Parts: sequence; C-alpha cells; structure tokens
Amino acid sequence: MSTDVRERVRKAKEAYIALMSESSARKNEALEAMAAALDSGRAAIMEANAKDLDAAEDMLAEGKLTPALLKRLKVDDAKIDEMIAGIRDVKGLPDPVGRTVSALELDDGLELYQVSTPIGLIGVIFESRPDVVPQIMALCLKSGNATIFKGGSEARESNRALFDLLTGAIASVAGMPSDAFQLMETRDDVAAMLDLDDHIDLIIPRGSNDFVRYIQDNTRIPVLGHADGVCHVYLDENADPEKALEVAVDSKVQYAAVCNAAETLLVHAAAAPALLPGIADILASNGVELRCDAASKRIVAASGAEAVDATAEDWDTEYNDLILSIKVVDNMEDAVAHINAHGSGHTDAIVTKDRGRAARFVAMVDSSSVMVNASTRFADGYRYGKGAEVGISTNKIHARGPVGMEGLMIYKYVLLGEGHAVKDYAGKGARPFKHLSLSRQLEIR
Amino acid sequence: MSTDVRERVRKAKEAYIALMSESSARKNEALEAMAAALDSGRAAIMEANAKDLDAAEDMLAEGKLTPALLKRLKVDDAKIDEMIAGIRDVKGLPDPVGRTVSALELDDGLELYQVSTPIGLIGVIFESRPDVVPQIMALCLKSGNATIFKGGSEARESNRALFDLLTGAIASVAGMPSDAFQLMETRDDVAAMLDLDDHIDLIIPRGSNDFVRYIQDNTRIPVLGHADGVCHVYLDENADPEKALEVAVDSKVQYAAVCNAAETLLVHAAAAPALLPGIADILASNGVELRCDAASKRIVAASGAEAVDATAEDWDTEYNDLILSIKVVDNMEDAVAHINAHGSGHTDAIVTKDRGRAARFVAMVDSSSVMVNASTRFADGYRYGKGAEVGISTNKIHARGPVGMEGLMIYKYVLLGEGHAVKDYAGKGARPFKHLSLSRQLEIR
Repeated sequence: MSTDVRERVRKAKEAYIALMSESSARKNEALEAMAAALDSGRAAIMEANAKDLDAAEDMLAEGKLTPALLKRLKVDDAKIDEMIAGIRDVKGLPDPVGRTVSALELDDGLELYQVSTPIGLIGVIFESRPDVVPQIMALCLKSGNATIFKGGSEARESNRALFDLLTGAIASVAGMPSDAFQLMETRDDVAAMLDLDDHIDLIIPRGSNDFVRYIQDNTRIPVLGHADGVCHVYLDENADPEKALEVAVDSKVQYAAVCNAAETLLVHAAAAPALLPGIADILASNGVELRCDAASKRIVAASGAEAVDATAEDWDTEYNDLILSIKVVDNMEDAVAHINAHGSGHTDAIVTKDRGRAARFVAMVDSSSVMVNASTRFADGYRYGKGAEVGISTNKIHARGPVGMEGLMIYKYVLLGEGHAVKDYAGKGARPFKHLSLSRQLEIR
Repeated sequence: MSTDVRERVRKAKEAYIALMSESSARKNEALEAMAAALDSGRAAIMEANAKDLDAAEDMLAEGKLTPALLKRLKVDDAKIDEMIAGIRDVKGLPDPVGRTVSALELDDGLELYQVSTPIGLIGVIFESRPDVVPQIMALCLKSGNATIFKGGSEARESNRALFDLLTGAIASVAGMPSDAFQLMETRDDVAAMLDLDDHIDLIIPRGSNDFVRYIQDNTRIPVLGHADGVCHVYLDENADPEKALEVAVDSKVQYAAVCNAAETLLVHAAAAPALLPGIADILASNGVELRCDAASKRIVAASGAEAVDATAEDWDTEYNDLILSIKVVDNMEDAVAHINAHGSGHTDAIVTKDRGRAARFVAMVDSSSVMVNASTRFADGYRYGKGAEVGISTNKIHARGPVGMEGLMIYKYVLLGEGHAVKDYAGKGARPFKHLSLSRQLEIR
C-alpha cells in the first residue's frame, strides 16, 4: 500500500480527535465559509469542470461513458447554487454531537450518561457526481467525522477544485482541523482504503448498484448503503380501486430510474380482474413494458394491453427502467412470502382498506420502509424530513432506510463518580445499585 | 458448504418472519416454559455435562484445555438456578419490538412512523460456557431474533441437552416457531456460518480475545464485540489522593482477568512524586507486578516497591493479569494522545478535581466508556442497568460499550397514507411537506 494513503489516513484520524470536540458555533462558522468559498470560486469550479467534460466527451464518443454519467458530471451555476444551499441547510441543522441520549443514577454521586458522538473516520467512494464533495463534507464536519473522499477519475479536476476551495475555507477558521478531510485520486487508493479496516470506521459508497456491490464484497469495513432496490406494490383483495391505481402507477412511473421505484406488482387473485385492466392500461400508456405471470397475462391481454411472459429472473430484477413484472397471488401471505424472498428489504407497499391486514403486512414484511396506501417513491431522506440524506440503507444494523446525519453518529458512555470503586458493589455486604432514570443533560463544570 | 447448514439457516430465517410478529404475552409464555424446562430437566443437563467434564479432564491432562476453561464448563445446581433466573429476568424486561421511536406527519393523512424491529438472524459462536445457550436464546426470543448457535466441541453434550430442553419448551407453546433456533456442532459449521453473509445479519462471539479476533478477521458479517480491552487510568495533576488510590487500585485488582480492568496507569508529572509511592505500595501488596517507564521507575523504586522496565510492547498489551504498566506524562494532552494511540477504545478513566479538564478528557478520549473519578471496572451491562448483557462492543457503529437487548434491535419505517402519490409533491405546483413531529404510537386498526 502506498505510504501516502496510510499517512493521509493517519492525519485525518488525528484531526478527527480535534474535530469531534469543536463547538457548534465554530463548526457553523466553517460551514458558512465553505458556502462563501463555493460562491466566490464559481469560475475556478467551472473551469475545472470544463476540463473533465472535455475528457468525458471523448470517453462518450469511445463508448467508455454513458450519457447519464456525463449529465451527472456537469456543474453549472444552478448546480453550484444547490451545493451552497445544501451546505447552509446542514448549517441550520441542530448539532448532533454531545446530546445526552439517556442518563441514569447508578448510586449516590455516581451518574451514567449516554452521549452522542461522531463515528470517527468515514470513507466516501463515489462515481461522477462532484456535488458529493460539498454535501458529505458539510454533513461530516457538522457531525464531527473525519472523511476520506475518493471520486471517479472522470470528475478528478472538478473534485479537486471543490475539495481545495472547501478545505481552504475550513482552514480559514483559525485552528479548525482541515486535515480531517482528505482526497484520494487513484484507483489504487480505493483498494488501499478498502483494506484499512483498522482505521476507517464506515464506508459510504455512492454510485451504481454494481459499484456498491463491488465495495460491499471487497472490504471488512461496514458499508452504509444498498446495492439493490427491488420494491413491490401489493394490491390486496379489497384495495380501493382509485388508491390502487394511484399507488401502483406512481410507484413505477413517477421516476423509474431510482432505487425506490417499484419493480413488481402483486395482485390478489380476487381483485385482479377488476383492478388490473385499468392499471395496465395507464401503465402501458406511460410506456411501461408489462412482464406478466400466466394469470395476470390472461387478464391484461383480455383488456387489450400488451404483455410479455415474465421469466423466473424477472422476480429478482431491478429494472431501473419503465418495465414492471406483474404476478397474481392467492392471498396476502403469498404476497408477503414473495416480497421477503425476492425483495431487497428496501421499500414495499400494500394497498388495502382492511386495517387488520395492513397491520399484518407491516409486521411481516422485513423491509426498511413499509408503505400502507402510499407510493414506494416516498422512501427518501428529504421526504422523510431528514434535512440532508447520507444515503438509503438496507443494512440490518446501525441505520436502515433513508439515513440522515444520525447515521454518522454513535455514542459513548460517560460515568461521573467521586472516587467510586467496584469492590464496594461486589461480594458480601455489596451496595445495591439504584439505577434511577435521570432527566438531565451531561454537564461537567 | 454442507447443505445441512444452508437448510437450517433457511429454516431459521423463515421462522424469524413468524417470530418477529409474535405477541409479548406469547413470548413471555415461551420464556416461562423455558425456565420451567431447565428446572425439571436438571438431571438430564447434569448428566450431559458430566460426559463433557469427563472428556475435558482427559484434555486437561493432555494440556489441550486450561483449568479456567474446565471451570467455566461445569454446570451444577447453582449454575442452573442462575440460568433460570436469567431467563425470568429477560421475561421481566419490556418487549423491545414494535416501539414507536419517532413519528412525523408528512402531510394531511400521510404519517411516518419509525418502529423498532428485530435485526433478523443472529449467529452466536462461543467457547466452553454452556450458559450462553439459555441466556442468548432468551434475549433473542424476547427481541424476535432467530439464532444459530455454535458452541465449542468441549461442551457439545451440555449445549445439546440445554438446546433440546429449551427449544422443546418453545415448541410447547402452540404455533411458536422453535425452528428459529438452530444448533451447529462441527468445526466446519463455523466456517459455513462465517460465509453466510447473505443470511446471517450479526455475529456475536463469546470467548477469548484470540477467538473474537479470529471471528472478526474471517467474516463479512458485522461482529458485535471486542477483541481487546487495553484500559487506562490517568491521574491528573490535581487528582484527589484518596480517589486516585481508590480508582487506580480498584481498576487493576478488583478482578484483573477481565476486559474492563486497567492495564496502564498514566500519571501527571507534577502529581507523580506525591501519588505514585502510596499507590505502588498498595498494588505491590496486592501482588501486582509494576512495569514502569524511566520516570515512574525512579519514583516507585525510591519508595521501596519493586518495579521492572516497561518495553514498547507493554503499552499495547492486555495482561488480563496482575500486571500494570505505569508511565509519567507531562500533561493531560499527552495522556489523551497515549490513550487514543494505544488503547482499544474500551474504557478509560481520569481522576481529577478540575471539572474543565474532566470535560476535555471526556470529549477527547475516543472510547466507549469514559470514567471521571470512577473505576474502569464499572463498564458492564449489569452495573449500567441493562438487565441483561449481550456483550461489550468496541465497534464504532450500531452499538458501543456494554450492550443490552437494544443491540439486537433495529427499526423500520412505516408510512400510512390514503393513496398518496409522490407526483403531487414534485415539479411545478408541488405540495409542500409539513414534517410535523407527532407524539403518537403507531396503531393500525
């Protein structure tokens, strides 16, 4: 491994110790300086971005880059405005560090506090979206986390320009440890980062499913994210027809290229003849290709809409496109079993008038978001009121679903005593503990 | 991989879906049946344990087992009483499943609930302590988690007897999914488990440091635990002499063989001449070997206590024994830097009269427990009022420090709508979100 990577990681970790005890006021001062630096540095950012775009046009011509990636790479004035607004949004969020989560009196003069703290050193590995740099740097600075960034080579100039402006702004606040943020630039650096499980506490990948899966499969560092988003909408026996249509159509067509769009529609056998024709019609008129099992194909075809046969593979596929697989199920239990077997634990919805069945669906579907009579597309940090989104996680530990700044936090225990020793609470004549809940913030002064 | 392991893991995961929606009353009924089964099954348990002990005596004679391991293997009536009491303790804890953690009104008729749920399938891999089986099975059943157990071969008969009694008791409650609990018995099964990162959501290892490190180094599944416990006591410039003595001595000698005992004593240079001689004297009279840096050796030796030279390795060593390394530091910042560099992020203490310095120490020491004027030995689930301890974690995500049943929990989001679609909240004329905090529990009925 390059000694340079190790050295920078060491620097960042050292700076983290200073960063985690910075005051809210000073962190907000740095965030304001970051926003101002992007505003006054527009020319430099766009000049750097132009270099990346030039190279990317060539790559596009050679088929080495997709038009979608090229589009995401472009930084214009409106994009810079968004970056600046994003930093100021984070500035406006409450400081997540040092909150007392719980407090307990163990005995006279012996008080235990559980206090929120940053996680430590975050590794952010991302593809051609330069706006990841200001967004994650703002979130990590506010939450007291050091960060190693590694962007795609196609955005190298843009990332470097943004990174230099932002860390320069942080350094302009006297004593702020701007070394907490480091930028890696080569492909070898990624491999080095993924190996540093002794130093990096959490990896946040931002990019395609294959990219995220590659990261997950090649590191022992915990990864916050999701590779797949195979989401379902289940229309129950007694679903309200209008709501069924609204939810099924919105979940698929409102924005098909994203992880929280539905890929499979499950319909109760008793409801399918009444519900499916109308829904299939609207979906087809929105350009959606319908891939049906035998039962749903009969109904869809009879209504005049086009349908193709679904293969076994379809039930496990995230299309990220205007394609929907459709299956008729005999009952809700079959729908739940299908979702738990084929879904990715991301977001799944039921449309039903029956509250009892809704409750059972919510209890039995093992996904990070479960919707009742609402579109799967609501599963998103902004819509969930997070203020800023770190990502969407299908992990079963730490943070699940849309993750805001809370996903960058952990806690420590602080025990305040007056010379207390465990020997007095052990063996014969042991003092008992009180374990009385306190509604008090940690204050040492 | 043996198809048997896959098949059992599949069975457990299927049963988990049923278990996670079981009612509190039925889970408590199963826990009571488990306690009763151990009580009426004492003869069978001790008969099985006798077989293990026979074999273990032979292994002891051959040097393949330590006396400490043999001691932990033994199950007698008192141990069974403890197991039964432990199960009833868990029965008495509040049900952690289905608690509303937060609630938010996104818009009229559109309500978001964050609700606690089990994690899923837990893998528990442990050495010769059969009491892990009832303890973890009780915690996992109450928290709705399925569990794969793999004990050491030296406790195979005892583990099997306990496992059969307990799962039989669970199955006696009609419809309770006792398949959620599976017992693996061969060494190959461990390797198979560590490979099943698609199915097992969390590994809890129970055993020696080397054992835990082996597990951590050989799986992509998140591991909840700690390999090392290099804990420090720092005596500040103006530490109260009596409290300094109490905390330093208790942290080392109250029980030296455990992870939260201190391994290194750091003393401010200005306080060392006054504090160290008395403390060294008491430590030495308790049989503690003192490994000193040059400055502390001068002081300790002048006072007549015996001291040996510490080597560089000492500062990173967990002795788990009556040995203490001692170092004089120039100031608190050096103490903090030493702790963050050489500690294991487990538990570290300061003794000081200065509240401001205590606050800085608490903010800058990056450990799961930070003690002010209290012994490191307090870092423990029972003392922290957890009711039941899953383990002590030095992880930086999910759960840190002494972990109770909350470490077995995650959450899901439940969105209740009335046919709401995202299209109405996007583009021109988009409806705004309200994002109003609700003080309401999720109720679907």
